[in-house]
Amino acid sequence: MALVVQKYGGTSVGSVERIRNVARRVAETYDADNDVIVIVSAMAGETNRLVALAAEISETPSDREYDVLVSTGEQVTIALLAMCLQSMGYNAKSYLGSQIPMLTDKAHAKARIQSIADKNIRNDLNKGTIIIVAGFQGTDGEGNITTLGRGGSDTSAVAVAAAMKADVCEIYTDVDGVYTTDPRMVAEARKIEKISYDEMLEMASLGAKVLQIRSVEFAKKYNVVIHVRSSFHDKPGTLVMKEDQDMETVLVSGVAYNKDEAKISIVGVPDQPGISAQIFTPLSDSGITVDMIIQNISHEGATDMTFTVPKGDYKKAVAIIDGVSKKIGARAVMSDMDISKVSIIGVGMRSHAGVASTMFEALSAEGINIQMISTSEIKVSCVIDAKYTELAVRVLHNAFGLDLPEIEETI
Amino acid sequence: MALVVQKYGGTSVGSVERIRNVARRVAETYDADNDVIVIVSAMAGETNRLVALAAEISETPSDREYDVLVSTGEQVTIALLAMCLQSMGYNAKSYLGSQIPMLTDKAHAKARIQSIADKNIRNDLNKGTIIIVAGFQGTDGEGNITTLGRGGSDTSAVAVAAAMKADVCEIYTDVDGVYTTDPRMVAEARKIEKISYDEMLEMASLGAKVLQIRSVEFAKKYNVVIHVRSSFHDKPGTLVMKEDQDMETVLVSGVAYNKDEAKISIVGVPDQPGISAQIFTPLSDSGITVDMIIQNISHEGATDMTFTVPKGDYKKAVAIIDGVSKKIGARAVMSDMDISKVSIIGVGMRSHAGVASTMFEALSAEGINIQMISTSEIKVSCVIDAKYTELAVRVLHNAFGLDLPEIEETI
Repeated sequence: MALVVQKYGGTSVGSVERIRNVARRVAETYDADNDVIVIVSAMAGETNRLVALAAEISETPSDREYDVLVSTGEQVTIALLAMCLQSMGYNAKSYLGSQIPMLTDKAHAKARIQSIADKNIRNDLNKGTIIIVAGFQGTDGEGNITTLGRGGSDTSAVAVAAAMKADVCEIYTDVDGVYTTDPRMVAEARKIEKISYDEMLEMASLGAKVLQIRSVEFAKKYNVVIHVRSSFHDKPGTLVMKEDQDMETVLVSGVAYNKDEAKISIVGVPDQPGISAQIFTPLSDSGITVDMIIQNISHEGATDMTFTVPKGDYKKAVAIIDGVSKKIGARAVMSDMDISKVSIIGVGMRSHAGVASTMFEALSAEGINIQMISTSEIKVSCVIDAKYTELAVRVLHNAFGLDLPEIEETI
Repeated sequence: MALVVQKYGGTSVGSVERIRNVARRVAETYDADNDVIVIVSAMAGETNRLVALAAEISETPSDREYDVLVSTGEQVTIALLAMCLQSMGYNAKSYLGSQIPMLTDKAHAKARIQSIADKNIRNDLNKGTIIIVAGFQGTDGEGNITTLGRGGSDTSAVAVAAAMKADVCEIYTDVDGVYTTDPRMVAEARKIEKISYDEMLEMASLGAKVLQIRSVEFAKKYNVVIHVRSSFHDKPGTLVMKEDQDMETVLVSGVAYNKDEAKISIVGVPDQPGISAQIFTPLSDSGITVDMIIQNISHEGATDMTFTVPKGDYKKAVAIIDGVSKKIGARAVMSDMDISKVSIIGVGMRSHAGVASTMFEALSAEGINIQMISTSEIKVSCVIDAKYTELAVRVLHNAFGLDLPEIEETI
């Protein structure tokens, strides 16, 4: 007998009819001789409805009360799903975060999980009960409701799977799994059979929105196997798991892109110790996350500094940097909204040279100019003109043979 | 400094605009140097929406999950009201039943309150915080959510007022207070300034729907002064409180009516020991509440038995009684849906003779035939033909001088 954790998002439980479908799938898994724990999100649209109510009441609602409000979304779903399974003749019981309890820190609206008690759930599992857990919510040590922030249900699921030592954590979504790149952009994009935690983290943070980044970090830390799969059919999706031999034979697993950043350059920065802090501390104090940072070599005591920020923070960042620029005596500030970042990701890069140059050559062969480069052990990212995004992704997908079928699938 | 408990029903918090109005009234009470605890219901329509969802999922949803579901209604309201007060610059904090905690028995969907801890709320009150409590909900000893049943928010409010030793429990409604009779039926109906618990209980159980019966029982038990008043204006409403000298000088405080009962008679019942049990045990086993019961004196070893049941149970009751009638050898079963019960209520009756005969004379003067009579220490009820209901109520209201202004109000 295996212990299977399943997570269904808001779209999968978006109506009574869809909740019935979820119940049928849960029941099938249970009937196949598994213990089952189900984590659910709020019905699609419900969280937005609640957030809109809060916004009508107050521009800056208190985080504590915000959590009391929005956590009702998942509470409704767990009750309905439990009722549905019961009406089908199964034992089912719903759990709020506070009933597990799932303890978090006190950071309302973006709480981090600290511990999950397994005793209550284990007792019910031993009685043959299907457990339905409200995603996204926990409780601090003092009985207050906390929430994990948007997308937190993925993290809830992985955390519960870790605490309960589940055999697999199935994340049901509206896509078939993780693809080598965005299938809407490249028709030849192929579903990846398995991918390492690190690769998935790079894919996620670079713009592939299949899984919440925090849930993957959690899975990596506790070695939880995630199975990302479709709620519309039974075909297997993508396994996100510990790196293995197979994965290393693949140079590049996927191509990701991100159009949500903007570029800011400060030209002619006096090259003095502490100058970087003078530039970036005001940005981080304003809550602006800086992604890529490039500093060119110094000429005649001055250097150029270029970095990217989320487009949503662009105006605020430019205003701050204009001020800083005057203060430190830089020559000019230049900025550009029309950029995108394309990236190749693969654990195979670690043991193979020449991956980056293949990338640069492929882009240059199409006349695509590279504005910035940043690398990690398992990825190479290039900032390019936004209008070339689709072309760049297609070219890179092709250059690394991602459009070819996997060997396993041809046997 | 007084401690004021205020309760606002679903209509009073039915929209963001109305929640703002409630917040303003709460703030005024707080600014007048009071500690304030507010109990709120779900926004109007919300509980029905949730119940409809449950009904779509299952014809017989489990009580435990039903409570998980419907308790979200009040949870939404407490968060929004707390946010609203905070945005006005007040300290406010929401409390779920489980956060107080308000302990109940395990009877989901109709739980009874067992105890209310005052420590958490007291600590917050001492910090100058306005407390917002979710009505209608509690928790059993094992962390499950329980609900008190429809209208339970009145009971929550009175129970919290009792536990916290509040000076008054204000119940805000869409009427001005308790009236001498239904103002829609008798234009001269007058708001009652104060009324005893026992009178209010009779009024409530006889069809005046201003307050939940259980909340009045609770108030009587713990001697909580209830102030029933309008949420639309500031004028005082009706005080429901311990009987005092003033009340006893009034013979009749109010006239109530109830059109929701039906009459069943078994004619020619053999007059033997145990025969009543044979008739009424099957009814109570089927969950049918019998109200008035009248047994005439016996003639030639047979008697007639007449009783009333709620109209909703009429068909079921007649079917049961038809069976019983054959078994015990009664002569016939007769039944009548077109009846109503009119009642006069007043603690003054205890010390005054002749109240009942004044009632009978007033009805007979209008040619209204009395079909059944039942009395308690402080009320007299008559079953009459339904078509005379309005006439009877008007006549009785007049016969006991209820249309005359109270002396206090003329000074």
